[in-house]
Amino acid sequence: MKLILLSGGSGKRLWPLSNDSRSKQFLKLLTRSEDVLESMVQRIWRQLELNQLSNSTYISTSKTQVDILQGQLGTQVPLIIEPERRDTFPAIALAAAYLYSVMGVNRNEVIIVMPVDPFVENQFFHKVKELENIILQSSMDIALIGVNPAYTSTKYGYIIPDTADKEPEQEYLKVTGFKEKPTVEQAEDLIKQQALWNCGVFAFKLGYMMDQLEKRGLPTQYDQFIEHFNNLPKISFDYEIVEKVEHIAVLPYNGYWRDLGTWNTLTEEMQTSIIGRGSVNNDCINTHLINELDIPVFVLGTSNVVVAASPDGILVSEKSVSHQVKEIVKDLEQRPMYEERRWGWYRVLDYKKSAEGMEVLTKRLFIFAGHNISYQYHHNRSEVWVVVKGEGEFVLDDKLSYVKKGDVLTIPVGARHGIKASKDLEIIEVQMGSKLEEGDIIRLFMSWEEMKKSLESK
Amino acid sequence: MKLILLSGGSGKRLWPLSNDSRSKQFLKLLTRSEDVLESMVQRIWRQLELNQLSNSTYISTSKTQVDILQGQLGTQVPLIIEPERRDTFPAIALAAAYLYSVMGVNRNEVIIVMPVDPFVENQFFHKVKELENIILQSSMDIALIGVNPAYTSTKYGYIIPDTADKEPEQEYLKVTGFKEKPTVEQAEDLIKQQALWNCGVFAFKLGYMMDQLEKRGLPTQYDQFIEHFNNLPKISFDYEIVEKVEHIAVLPYNGYWRDLGTWNTLTEEMQTSIIGRGSVNNDCINTHLINELDIPVFVLGTSNVVVAASPDGILVSEKSVSHQVKEIVKDLEQRPMYEERRWGWYRVLDYKKSAEGMEVLTKRLFIFAGHNISYQYHHNRSEVWVVVKGEGEFVLDDKLSYVKKGDVLTIPVGARHGIKASKDLEIIEVQMGSKLEEGDIIRLFMSWEEMKKSLESK
Repeated sequence: MKLILLSGGSGKRLWPLSNDSRSKQFLKLLTRSEDVLESMVQRIWRQLELNQLSNSTYISTSKTQVDILQGQLGTQVPLIIEPERRDTFPAIALAAAYLYSVMGVNRNEVIIVMPVDPFVENQFFHKVKELENIILQSSMDIALIGVNPAYTSTKYGYIIPDTADKEPEQEYLKVTGFKEKPTVEQAEDLIKQQALWNCGVFAFKLGYMMDQLEKRGLPTQYDQFIEHFNNLPKISFDYEIVEKVEHIAVLPYNGYWRDLGTWNTLTEEMQTSIIGRGSVNNDCINTHLINELDIPVFVLGTSNVVVAASPDGILVSEKSVSHQVKEIVKDLEQRPMYEERRWGWYRVLDYKKSAEGMEVLTKRLFIFAGHNISYQYHHNRSEVWVVVKGEGEFVLDDKLSYVKKGDVLTIPVGARHGIKASKDLEIIEVQMGSKLEEGDIIRLFMSWEEMKKSLESK
Repeated sequence: MKLILLSGGSGKRLWPLSNDSRSKQFLKLLTRSEDVLESMVQRIWRQLELNQLSNSTYISTSKTQVDILQGQLGTQVPLIIEPERRDTFPAIALAAAYLYSVMGVNRNEVIIVMPVDPFVENQFFHKVKELENIILQSSMDIALIGVNPAYTSTKYGYIIPDTADKEPEQEYLKVTGFKEKPTVEQAEDLIKQQALWNCGVFAFKLGYMMDQLEKRGLPTQYDQFIEHFNNLPKISFDYEIVEKVEHIAVLPYNGYWRDLGTWNTLTEEMQTSIIGRGSVNNDCINTHLINELDIPVFVLGTSNVVVAASPDGILVSEKSVSHQVKEIVKDLEQRPMYEERRWGWYRVLDYKKSAEGMEVLTKRLFIFAGHNISYQYHHNRSEVWVVVKGEGEFVLDDKLSYVKKGDVLTIPVGARHGIKASKDLEIIEVQMGSKLEEGDIIRLFMSWEEMKKSLESK
């Protein structure tokens, strides 16, 4: 059995902490143990390890998440990288083609797909494992986990089972249909029929998926598939495959399951009501504060409120309407103010555009010991680096030097430059130019060793 | 008649906008006309002008407020500057000595003292003018304005009048006593007795005040008084004078009067519910947002809440408990994050202290064209200045150079340095050291010209 974890982009429902470059699954808001916080993806990976599943797991993700995934889970975690985001059918198909043609997985092996961010208890993973047996021992093409509805939700999809057609010993039910986002009346009716929430966990034989690709004239070889990828329709696996299949099983799960997709649901699972600098006074009721800024936040006398602050902005919301933030920030044009990268992280401290169109941007960079920024240059900006902590190797226009705390490095427009930390490096960077954007980077070498080899050969 | 406006320090009840270096009367939160905001001090000055009182008005203030007062009211406004803060008796006595001995005001002229920050309608100033007649035409030593209580307040002082002893034509009442901050029961009782709120407006003949100084062995000459100033007790004019005087009149005022001392009372008078970047959505009820940060603040679904954000911090408070912020921030040890100075302003962008006790602080400095930072050095920090806008003269260890946008200036610990802007200068400053505090400045020359003369003579 192979497990594919889908690590998608979650948009802005947890703004200002989540944004285009930091999806909700990477926010460290869950309590792992006293004083130690973990993200949703770290939590699920830990649960997979606990259930001896992590060695069979691949993460399907996009290029933009590689740095942060490796930062949070380590560089050993196997990734299958989509060239761009195109919904779950293309993502799952690509992962299947990869397992089949690159990893040589047998067509009879069971593939289980699941999202990276459900908040579940351990027994959920027992159900995940059971799906393998259902696929191997029945005539079902696809097997799903169905969550016993905790309340009458109108925002989830429902799986409708055939409760009459069931063998005595059989744990799963046959599926007769699906219903996405019902009305309240429909949802009440579905719950009476013992319908279950679709939590996005699918199992199938790799060969079944290969057949589906062949039927659609799509390549089963990874390198061919990836070339084709950007032409695939943006369609979900549910619509493209699941809802068209005749033989589907659903395995009911009665345990705890939450989709921590809004501040309202997320704060319910937080074991601390304050993260970051500040306080929530005793008069407050059911009020949470998450503060990623350096300045203090004080909350007085509020009820059912979440306050979330990050370098991107500040949200103050009555909890029951916190899902509306997505709509409010959708047209917000703002560059990311904080990003985690393969080599560390940066935070924007200040940004100003003058009347004459000159831009100045000040960042704090943190580069982990042993890591380097790629050897690069910029078309439209000069940079000044003030090394405020640590030491490392610096290259400017092919000249290598050793730099340490207190050094000031001036990088003119177009100059090739890179840095590698021998001890954790912190740098205050001042960018000046006519058009400052993250995209203005021409990377010559990602690898420090390759760069040095190339310099030596000159 | 001369008017003395007392411009005191207001502490932290409007934190995070007000702080030790920016008192509440300077916050531009009141609507003057569409799209134009004004501060409390600007509003009262406009009202004094409207009532032909501004030409007779002096502002009593401390050194720290001179820059901001002149910035908001112009450099022509006459100031009487206390050497340090010592409550209202020393401040009023100093102002009286100044009027008497420097301005040559006659002992028979009436002096009226009032705070700089009451929120009142125009007719309040008619009452202020009437005080002059009461002092000139009665045997009263002091005349006060008493505000008709709008509700049973326990936080104001009450003036108890003798309602029986009153001539038919007479508008004022004789005062029989005072009561500071009564209990609710006492306040109810006081209101039954027709007691009035003491709003801090006092009138007296200049000679009366001079007699009081002489009686206490204090000088009536300004230059002698100012030398004596720092030895005076920190005591209010109410306690030292008003409550000991026999012949006091109170003139009732039935109009609108508010002390905008808390976010709750201040937001009631704001004509706009949003100042700064962000929004308050339609589900919100009686919710105000004041945002001085560059990042957006979004408020969703709250009722009776004020959100205030500045470089010092963020407050989210249910309005009725907003006065508690003073208590919460009183032990907050935080350096000022934004200060207006004689030469411009600075804002702290970032501050970090490492485990080894090293500190790094990043600032944005703005120096107005024609202004200079004093020639100075620091014991405990080095600085790097990245000039991101403008040009000017720079001195480092007595060596003068011309600097402009793009230049990087490195200032070692102990090095003498200064800069004067020929065009508006903007600088990103990175401080590094073992103990970073504003106080670590040894100023050699405040004046650029004197510094240059001294360099030439070397």
